[in-house]
Amino acid sequence: MKSQPLLPSRAPKKASLEKEVIYPILDEALFCTISYVQDGMPFSIPTSFVRYEDKIYIHGSVGSHFIRSLETGIPVCITVMLVDALVVARSAFSHSVNYKSVVVFANAEKIESPDLKWDSLQWLTEKIVPGSWDYLRPMTESEVRKTTVLAFSLDQASAKARTGMPNDEEEDRELEIWSGIIPLEQKRLAPIADDLSQHIPLPSHLQ
Amino acid sequence: MKSQPLLPSRAPKKASLEKEVIYPILDEALFCTISYVQDGMPFSIPTSFVRYEDKIYIHGSVGSHFIRSLETGIPVCITVMLVDALVVARSAFSHSVNYKSVVVFANAEKIESPDLKWDSLQWLTEKIVPGSWDYLRPMTESEVRKTTVLAFSLDQASAKARTGMPNDEEEDRELEIWSGIIPLEQKRLAPIADDLSQHIPLPSHLQ
Repeated sequence: MKSQPLLPSRAPKKASLEKEVIYPILDEALFCTISYVQDGMPFSIPTSFVRYEDKIYIHGSVGSHFIRSLETGIPVCITVMLVDALVVARSAFSHSVNYKSVVVFANAEKIESPDLKWDSLQWLTEKIVPGSWDYLRPMTESEVRKTTVLAFSLDQASAKARTGMPNDEEEDRELEIWSGIIPLEQKRLAPIADDLSQHIPLPSHLQ
Repeated sequence: MKSQPLLPSRAPKKASLEKEVIYPILDEALFCTISYVQDGMPFSIPTSFVRYEDKIYIHGSVGSHFIRSLETGIPVCITVMLVDALVVARSAFSHSVNYKSVVVFANAEKIESPDLKWDSLQWLTEKIVPGSWDYLRPMTESEVRKTTVLAFSLDQASAKARTGMPNDEEEDRELEIWSGIIPLEQKRLAPIADDLSQHIPLPSHLQ
């Protein structure tokens, strides 16, 4: 497995700074990993997020240690990776992965405006379950107060991707060994109702 | 979305230090994210990995900046997350995610033994494509020399998980709003041969 995902120094041709490349990756991924430094040590946390215009938004409890660390504006590194296929070559050395990834370097900006907090919680919810916001019990002011929303600029974002078939070594290409890709698919299965919802019709946005 | 994945301070009951919980999560996940600190700044990289006994192994090119940074033994934080389902509650605030995650704090140990490097590259390949190692063109000594393998102890590893149905607020539970989960499934689709493999039968380990 020669080509490691996300090693900018090894595969410069794959990198992109274009919004047209970066934003669709961010919009497809439901989760990112946010890493930061505390007392000189690395920490990282997977979390849900949403992109809106030129920023990423995340949320968490006002009491969360993670959120309270980030809201001070310390530098973070945000990574997103979508794996599209396993790349099966004729040698283990040429194995690889088809993927799309984004790396963002940024500092959190704490959203103080209740309106923008409200909007960003709607964007987050609609990303996870499109069409659900107006169906749900409306958010209360108390819930908004209990939630911290942090925004991160996408000014320092870059994307990388690998696509296509294996790149076997020239001398391996005529070997009678099968080479190709195994596509991976992330699927949403049929919703399962909880006990109290058994008699409630599945809303149209979940069908 | 009240319950953020992986916030130890908010959901202490979910955490586990048991190998019996941690290792199956590591064995199911194909990718991890490794974060580290350089010049006081956070960096993180998604990469493939394999667990063998009480260590995680990763590999990369001897020339990779990432690998060269880590092989010095600086502290890393390794995270793995598997998302099993979206948890759709009656309010956006109670939305959550069913997930299994592992966090490891460790320092890289560079594998110098050619035999152990060879073995770990076999474990990495067999994890991505089980049964493939003996079918592939054998690894050469030169390929092993061009590859760095790093091991990380699992002594400081912990797991977290959320399972089950939404935990709606008591006063929301009688609302006529559908609540439940949307399971997510990561599937391997049928392999696609490259041009030169069209005439080669798909090997049994890929069927």
